[in-house]
Amino acid sequence: MSPSRIPDGEQRGWIVPIGGAEEKENDPRILERFVALCGGADADIVVIPTASQLSDTGSRYESIFTELGVGRVTALDFDTRRDAEERNRLKRIGEASGIFFTGGNQLRLSTMLGGTPIAQLIRARNASGVHVGGTSAGASILSEHMIAFGKEGSSPTAGSVRLAPGLGLTNRFVIDQHFRQRDRLGRLLAALAYNPYAVGIGLDEDTAAFIRPDNTLEVEGSGSVTVVDAGNLQFSSMAQADEDDPVCLLGLTIHILIAGATFNLQTRTASAGTLITPKQTH
Amino acid sequence: MSPSRIPDGEQRGWIVPIGGAEEKENDPRILERFVALCGGADADIVVIPTASQLSDTGSRYESIFTELGVGRVTALDFDTRRDAEERNRLKRIGEASGIFFTGGNQLRLSTMLGGTPIAQLIRARNASGVHVGGTSAGASILSEHMIAFGKEGSSPTAGSVRLAPGLGLTNRFVIDQHFRQRDRLGRLLAALAYNPYAVGIGLDEDTAAFIRPDNTLEVEGSGSVTVVDAGNLQFSSMAQADEDDPVCLLGLTIHILIAGATFNLQTRTASAGTLITPKQTH
Repeated sequence: MSPSRIPDGEQRGWIVPIGGAEEKENDPRILERFVALCGGADADIVVIPTASQLSDTGSRYESIFTELGVGRVTALDFDTRRDAEERNRLKRIGEASGIFFTGGNQLRLSTMLGGTPIAQLIRARNASGVHVGGTSAGASILSEHMIAFGKEGSSPTAGSVRLAPGLGLTNRFVIDQHFRQRDRLGRLLAALAYNPYAVGIGLDEDTAAFIRPDNTLEVEGSGSVTVVDAGNLQFSSMAQADEDDPVCLLGLTIHILIAGATFNLQTRTASAGTLITPKQTH
Repeated sequence: MSPSRIPDGEQRGWIVPIGGAEEKENDPRILERFVALCGGADADIVVIPTASQLSDTGSRYESIFTELGVGRVTALDFDTRRDAEERNRLKRIGEASGIFFTGGNQLRLSTMLGGTPIAQLIRARNASGVHVGGTSAGASILSEHMIAFGKEGSSPTAGSVRLAPGLGLTNRFVIDQHFRQRDRLGRLLAALAYNPYAVGIGLDEDTAAFIRPDNTLEVEGSGSVTVVDAGNLQFSSMAQADEDDPVCLLGLTIHILIAGATFNLQTRTASAGTLITPKQTH
């Protein structure tokens, strides 16, 4: 499930993983920004609630997006893998300017959509400029290597994480969500220790990474985004460790970003962005 | 409470913070190593159980150290600040080859001993070669800047930690303990964000940093030690943040060390040490 090639003359849509529990009513900055990105009143958003086992998740997001002024919004659920080949659903995805995955269990998304024409179409549409966002499980699914589940704790053990193939919009990063709230640094570090090429992105609740077509990540929301860059890793004991053993990792670079700060996934440089202007006194 | 000057021709004793819940019976590696350091059968250890509110903490460690073959061991408690000026107690500290602080509440240690002749004597004795260890609260107290209490969570907020002056054996690092078990990365990062000059040392339970006279730290025990080096910090938003605001920190270096790995606090370089030899197959 590698990222689709970006057609000549086009640019990829934004990729917007959200850490879960995004504010939906009182100052819903993240969802508002996603809506603006997709075209505001002209936006056409498809919500995929398949990760969730609650029957009203789709209709709930339909109401939320309608409330935020979206021109057209449709919840599109997938109960079987056959649904993910069905013509009307493919047509509907083909019309959307934005696609949004709700929370739930990311393995429901990967088992239902993995390898289907819908998954392929979403990758192709994103490569052609359609914006794709997701919250919680819907954030995890976006990248090629997905954290399926794991253990809590801030230090990694060899078996503290299990990876699975995700939707594959990009292979530049591995996402984890509910990051501060569920103490997930250890499992993100373990994921990077297997193969340090990707950047780890830990998203707090009500916090999103808005990833531009040029692969610069901008932070939005009330919490922080922990970026783990293992590119200069000096040593990893992962290959010698048994499942419950702690893992030795030397030379990780970590940035804690808050709204306004950015990280360039290409050059791996962090910037305080708009934060450099001192806060107004009050 | 700055570190005592090391007398000419002498060298500082080891400083041994332990992350709490160290194994005491079945393969008690950390305590065994501390005992060996202090002289084994010739060791003379004073246990200070003042952090604990349990009346048997001192006698429990007396039994443990006796079991491990220590020649002489005495629990020395301090119920009032006047106790910390008392002649017999000062004399007993003056005889010890090792001093050990038990767990409990580090504010009990700092309020009872801070600024007393006992605190001064322990600093001077450490500077002259006496080894000083402590577990949990007893680890926190050892450095000049001590984490008194704080909030859980892996990302820092401006008010997520409260510092207090500690015993001041060294000012090179700030200790946090029960690190993985109580999800304390955020508060350690907040402590470093106030002033990035010190190195942050996060100790998991049953894990210790054996800090040599030359300020190289060796890891012992079953968990890991998270070393946070903020020396190359590019940006901190701490000065502009309100108490509950998340804090932006760019350019932290993190090393996850396990038993056998080392970190040189002087040069700030990590080494896998004995880990480089692959584990024997079994």
